[in-house]
Amino acid sequence: MGPLKAEEICRAVHLALAEDVGSGDVTTAATVPETALASASMRTRETIVAAGMPLAETTFFELSSAVKIERAAKEGQRVEANRGLMRITGPARALLTGERVALNFVQRLSGIATLTAQFVEAVKGTGACILDTRKTTPGWRSLEKYAVTCGGGHNNRMGLFDMVMIKDNHLVALRAESPNAIAAAIQRARARYPKLKVEVEADTLEQVEQALDAGADLILLDNMNLVQLRLAVQKCKGRAQTEASGGINLAGVRAIAETGVDFISVGALTHSARAVDIGLDFEL
Amino acid sequence: MGPLKAEEICRAVHLALAEDVGSGDVTTAATVPETALASASMRTRETIVAAGMPLAETTFFELSSAVKIERAAKEGQRVEANRGLMRITGPARALLTGERVALNFVQRLSGIATLTAQFVEAVKGTGACILDTRKTTPGWRSLEKYAVTCGGGHNNRMGLFDMVMIKDNHLVALRAESPNAIAAAIQRARARYPKLKVEVEADTLEQVEQALDAGADLILLDNMNLVQLRLAVQKCKGRAQTEASGGINLAGVRAIAETGVDFISVGALTHSARAVDIGLDFEL
Amino acid sequence: MGPLKAEEICRAVHLALAEDVGSGDVTTAATVPETALASASMRTRETIVAAGMPLAETTFFELSSAVKIERAAKEGQRVEANRGLMRITGPARALLTGERVALNFVQRLSGIATLTAQFVEAVKGTGACILDTRKTTPGWRSLEKYAVTCGGGHNNRMGLFDMVMIKDNHLVALRAESPNAIAAAIQRARARYPKLKVEVEADTLEQVEQALDAGADLILLDNMNLVQLRLAVQKCKGRAQTEASGGINLAGVRAIAETGVDFISVGALTHSARAVDIGLDFEL
Amino acid sequence: MGPLKAEEICRAVHLALAEDVGSGDVTTAATVPETALASASMRTRETIVAAGMPLAETTFFELSSAVKIERAAKEGQRVEANRGLMRITGPARALLTGERVALNFVQRLSGIATLTAQFVEAVKGTGACILDTRKTTPGWRSLEKYAVTCGGGHNNRMGLFDMVMIKDNHLVALRAESPNAIAAAIQRARARYPKLKVEVEADTLEQVEQALDAGADLILLDNMNLVQLRLAVQKCKGRAQTEASGGINLAGVRAIAETGVDFISVGALTHSARAVDIGLDFEL
Amino acid sequence: MGPLKAEEICRAVHLALAEDVGSGDVTTAATVPETALASASMRTRETIVAAGMPLAETTFFELSSAVKIERAAKEGQRVEANRGLMRITGPARALLTGERVALNFVQRLSGIATLTAQFVEAVKGTGACILDTRKTTPGWRSLEKYAVTCGGGHNNRMGLFDMVMIKDNHLVALRAESPNAIAAAIQRARARYPKLKVEVEADTLEQVEQALDAGADLILLDNMNLVQLRLAVQKCKGRAQTEASGGINLAGVRAIAETGVDFISVGALTHSARAVDIGLDFEL
Amino acid sequence: MGPLKAEEICRAVHLALAEDVGSGDVTTAATVPETALASASMRTRETIVAAGMPLAETTFFELSSAVKIERAAKEGQRVEANRGLMRITGPARALLTGERVALNFVQRLSGIATLTAQFVEAVKGTGACILDTRKTTPGWRSLEKYAVTCGGGHNNRMGLFDMVMIKDNHLVALRAESPNAIAAAIQRARARYPKLKVEVEADTLEQVEQALDAGADLILLDNMNLVQLRLAVQKCKGRAQTEASGGINLAGVRAIAETGVDFISVGALTHSARAVDIGLDFEL
Repeated sequence: MGPLKAEEICRAVHLALAEDVGSGDVTTAATVPETALASASMRTRETIVAAGMPLAETTFFELSSAVKIERAAKEGQRVEANRGLMRITGPARALLTGERVALNFVQRLSGIATLTAQFVEAVKGTGACILDTRKTTPGWRSLEKYAVTCGGGHNNRMGLFDMVMIKDNHLVALRAESPNAIAAAIQRARARYPKLKVEVEADTLEQVEQALDAGADLILLDNMNLVQLRLAVQKCKGRAQTEASGGINLAGVRAIAETGVDFISVGALTHSARAVDIGLDFEL
Repeated sequence: MGPLKAEEICRAVHLALAEDVGSGDVTTAATVPETALASASMRTRETIVAAGMPLAETTFFELSSAVKIERAAKEGQRVEANRGLMRITGPARALLTGERVALNFVQRLSGIATLTAQFVEAVKGTGACILDTRKTTPGWRSLEKYAVTCGGGHNNRMGLFDMVMIKDNHLVALRAESPNAIAAAIQRARARYPKLKVEVEADTLEQVEQALDAGADLILLDNMNLVQLRLAVQKCKGRAQTEASGGINLAGVRAIAETGVDFISVGALTHSARAVDIGLDFEL
Repeated sequence: MGPLKAEEICRAVHLALAEDVGSGDVTTAATVPETALASASMRTRETIVAAGMPLAETTFFELSSAVKIERAAKEGQRVEANRGLMRITGPARALLTGERVALNFVQRLSGIATLTAQFVEAVKGTGACILDTRKTTPGWRSLEKYAVTCGGGHNNRMGLFDMVMIKDNHLVALRAESPNAIAAAIQRARARYPKLKVEVEADTLEQVEQALDAGADLILLDNMNLVQLRLAVQKCKGRAQTEASGGINLAGVRAIAETGVDFISVGALTHSARAVDIGLDFEL
Repeated sequence: MGPLKAEEICRAVHLALAEDVGSGDVTTAATVPETALASASMRTRETIVAAGMPLAETTFFELSSAVKIERAAKEGQRVEANRGLMRITGPARALLTGERVALNFVQRLSGIATLTAQFVEAVKGTGACILDTRKTTPGWRSLEKYAVTCGGGHNNRMGLFDMVMIKDNHLVALRAESPNAIAAAIQRARARYPKLKVEVEADTLEQVEQALDAGADLILLDNMNLVQLRLAVQKCKGRAQTEASGGINLAGVRAIAETGVDFISVGALTHSARAVDIGLDFEL
Repeated sequence: MGPLKAEEICRAVHLALAEDVGSGDVTTAATVPETALASASMRTRETIVAAGMPLAETTFFELSSAVKIERAAKEGQRVEANRGLMRITGPARALLTGERVALNFVQRLSGIATLTAQFVEAVKGTGACILDTRKTTPGWRSLEKYAVTCGGGHNNRMGLFDMVMIKDNHLVALRAESPNAIAAAIQRARARYPKLKVEVEADTLEQVEQALDAGADLILLDNMNLVQLRLAVQKCKGRAQTEASGGINLAGVRAIAETGVDFISVGALTHSARAVDIGLDFEL
Repeated sequence: MGPLKAEEICRAVHLALAEDVGSGDVTTAATVPETALASASMRTRETIVAAGMPLAETTFFELSSAVKIERAAKEGQRVEANRGLMRITGPARALLTGERVALNFVQRLSGIATLTAQFVEAVKGTGACILDTRKTTPGWRSLEKYAVTCGGGHNNRMGLFDMVMIKDNHLVALRAESPNAIAAAIQRARARYPKLKVEVEADTLEQVEQALDAGADLILLDNMNLVQLRLAVQKCKGRAQTEASGGINLAGVRAIAETGVDFISVGALTHSARAVDIGLDFEL
């Protein structure tokens, strides 16, 4: 994924401001004069990989076109605890009203980038790629997948539309019709979507072989142990790419990578990353 | 908060399906006949407090009006590991296409409800209420605050619009004009928004006294230690309600509650809850 | 309320132009060359308090970014009959196409500001605040409430979401359960929404006392006569704020204010203000 | 205009509920049980011509599909003071939350219908039609024009798109090019929009003649006195239709109608009608 | 129709980009650096009348505000084969991602303009105007009608809202009530929509006479042969305008125009124009 | 592609009705009573392959939920001239107002299906698949691609998001960096989007070989003659799939198919299909 699309950023910021500001920021309207100016530094309180700063910037720009922002870090950069991410200067009202929404974006996306970077670091040198999954917050998928790339991970499919992924549940109807349901499914998928890749989920080595014989482009090795993974990788070498998946954590990811799989997909990157601790220090 | 509003549910489900299904679920379209039927059980693999099931149901109904659902648990109910949440019957295509989106909703919201319930349990008997914060996922605030109530927590303000919350940064401009900035801010807020409550953030006992003298309705005791909290609560008794806030975790929450504060607000409820493990078991 | 939010202005102007211009301003397209320039003065034909000029300006800017506008009056300013409000210069097509929409905004909002100012003037010196109500044109609430502030009035709650207002009809179910329904209702409201103010509607002095005993923050004195109002105000002094409401008009408002009530809410400000007479004089 | 279009009704009701209910009706959620039932009568407290009841009905249906409504009057019907318009039965929460929005619609639209009916009554027997203008509340045009028809008035053009209306300001550029600007304008309009009617605004009898000679379909007689109107009508007979306009009120409208004009357009119908007094009486 | 409205252009471009780019242009993101620059000429490969260039320009501007465009032809201009329409310079990613959408707009709209120009050329000197119809691509009407004017054609009604067009099917219910259904229909239409023109569809000379006697403004001569057309035109002279319609093609249109009809409406202009051949030549 | 998605149908129908009906169908409102009933047959006047009927049905259902429809043909079925497609019964107003929009959908989509079927017929028995392109009407892509499948064609990629397609213009920046730009591009694409197929456009046999060596999944043979195509197909056999493209017409398509290419993509299917002749015959 390249940089975030401008319209994606705008949509997210509008939604967030609508929800938080609603009929108006009553505290700021009552206590802060329209003409007051302020500046503030966004600073991280723990070591992170930064992501989501364009969303924070747009949040402040939406609230006042008079805001000026200087960046102190790049997206995807490792930033030590207590270092600044950006410095915002402009109408005090805009800074105060936008503070929480801006932080919500950066804390959450940097949380994903930071966790991803830990997985990427763990498999360094093995040749395995860390992939995300579809286990994302509804409405946030492209933001979260972008944060994964900031952390050095790669993107799996974006959704149900850009590749064929045949799981066991897709085969049920075909089993009644054909002795080799995996082969039948791949054939149908190729006939209908001749330009998409086909991946097959395999729980056993037997299914791996069926998928290979039927010409799958990728094979998802689901919840296999290290022995099974190593055997599956051998079988697939030169015939299809392999992806390990299922309950993968930081402690175990390197051993999995060392089995030789091409990809390791990790749901936790997006479904269980915690927000990192970032704050806005005002100099008023 | 009462039950989720129907339009809130619809908006979230539409967004989630648009993002995941996009131009079409190619795998299902290629492999599963339009007329095939299926049923599936949504089951939790760990002990949780359930939340978000209406979103899952609407996801399936959106995909086919022929889907039938039987609920096995209520929102806010504690459900043991390996017990069912609901059973879905209908066109196999709808079940397969909706699976991930439905689970994304329930796993995430149940994660919040489950974490909230742990905090609520921890302070049981002390009289303190557990509150959420504005540290929510942009676009998801009302869903996440709903999940907090499922877990037995209470909702803080919904946004910047429904109460006045005076923090230190709001006082800067007033300090230049008036010797007692807190009093000046409260007075302005009451003049402009005579029907909203006014809360003041205090970092020291001196600020607590200023806020009390100026007639604040609530006082936010920010990052105070247990000694300070106990003294602040004594001062406020009968004059204003108190809220403890700042880096509160499960280990420390009971001690804080025992200082006698009225409310404890916990950002982690929404910004750092992990998704719980729930799956969909097909019987095809 | 501070100045109108930019997005509020844009939404209203888009809606208005979509409705009026639709598939195109056929007269202007047929008769006025694209390159013709024009200027025009917006002038009031009666003495008014001005409101809504930013909406008029945005209307013209939407139609052409080449329009220039000089303001001759500020929002909330009293403007004598036959004085100018603003001067618009730019493409003749934009001025002619936008004329009616721009005037519709300013005439209607200045009508509300002007009527509000008459009520505010009438109670001058008594200490009572003039408030608006929820009797606003659907879709126009924030605009109309803004116009009330331009006229020197204050805003009541924005909607059903930002304070608790217990009316007789809310008590019915509670009466079956509890001897003191008002007290029960206040208690439930405080439990659920600990950070919102609670107002109780009272038709009799007895209800005023129940509400006071139950700890209401505000008491709405509905349709009471002057004697009742004076007694109610005495009872409430130091315990709760008071608001008079119900069929209040310009002739009677001062006497009500002199009873000592804190607030007087007037539905007519928004539901029955007439549009004031303002025109656009072209100098072509 | 026929009955209101369903999508028009939905859009207006959604907007109104979004604005009033926002993040939730806190009072009702806190005090009224989800299962409580109620019924209420919508009753007028003055004699009116009814309009807008479908909007009120949709408001309640949006809040609960379990609501039942019995109509006691038809749109456009004259209803005496203290008579019912409709009776609503259903979940108490839906009735209480929807009350204000429903009344806002019916009070405002019935206000327009009632005022229109007074103008229509005043010109009865003269053959003149009462028309509305484009002086409508932005975003409400089709609703307000519908209310005019409920009161027995007729609709003028819907906007700038459905007929050509040449005013003095449109002629400026043409005057430089051609001795007879009115004729030039009509010719251009007919060339470009061969299927739309052309109306010309005339302030003097001389302009009336120019417009007639140039073949206008209708002539707008703007701010003429009764003598001028009568002369203009004579000139136009058999050649073009006539419309009187400009500062017309109830006292003077009959004399204008008796000059023989075909149409009388009255801005006040929509820009200055007051809301009529209608209430909801609960039987809980 | 004047130039395309800016908001119309934006809506169409957004829709087109959303559909084509979706979750991202994967090829360009993977292979072209963000900083690479490029330029390209849009050139026609056959002789055309140009239309739609503002849509192409907006497509590129949407993708990057750093794009610069020089126009080499005007809308509505005849452009010989192999000549340039515009030259685009800017970020290579924007040019590559926008290429297809930009061409889709210009090829399709220039196709309509080019076909229209052939019809206009064919009737040159006869006094007949070429009109479009409502047989347009849903969602594209204003764009397609604009392209017709680029080719020298005129616009018929925009939709069902801006004139009355009585066809045989509208008369059925009236026939039961009245001996002269055409007269009854015209009378009802004039009563309800006094400011719109009334056209009547006639299949026979008898119907032409009924429509004339009832005072129709225009008469649609549907599927008549040349003899019938000539007779109908004679009857209508000085009483109503005439429009020929029904299966008109380039070969036959001049003979129809020579019968003296005022208008000839041609569905094929919009429903069957083919896209012309235009390409983008990169100089990278 | 499976059947059209319901939300796709709704969006298209809403857009089309908004555009055509706008502020109201004035003719029908004036002349046809609300209670009148009618029925009508949609009949084709030439032999077609039918497509788009669900859009026509939804058009009528949107206008009245009392409409009943009986289908006389299936989507994708060949229907002889003068045979019926469906029969619509219901309120006369709904049938008259919806007629044009309903026909616009079916005529245009059946036009595409019919043209596609001619191409499919022409290559019958050769093993080549007919594919569409991205040369679709903006906003209509999924409808038009659906119509292609009704005619027996297959869908190419849906947009820029679901596969990698490397054209010459993508290689420019890479040429500066690497001697083998095609190989570099494929490598980058695989690294970034490991789960998408990669196609390379080749204009010469040399490029075909480079693409094969670099491991392309598909090769687009652009504007090659029959000799070149045959040689390219030989080279690719067993290593990559082949697609012929560029100026392909009905006369030449079979010869191309006989070269052994896997796919033939035809822009004309969507960019130049004419609307077929279908009408609605009323029985009133």
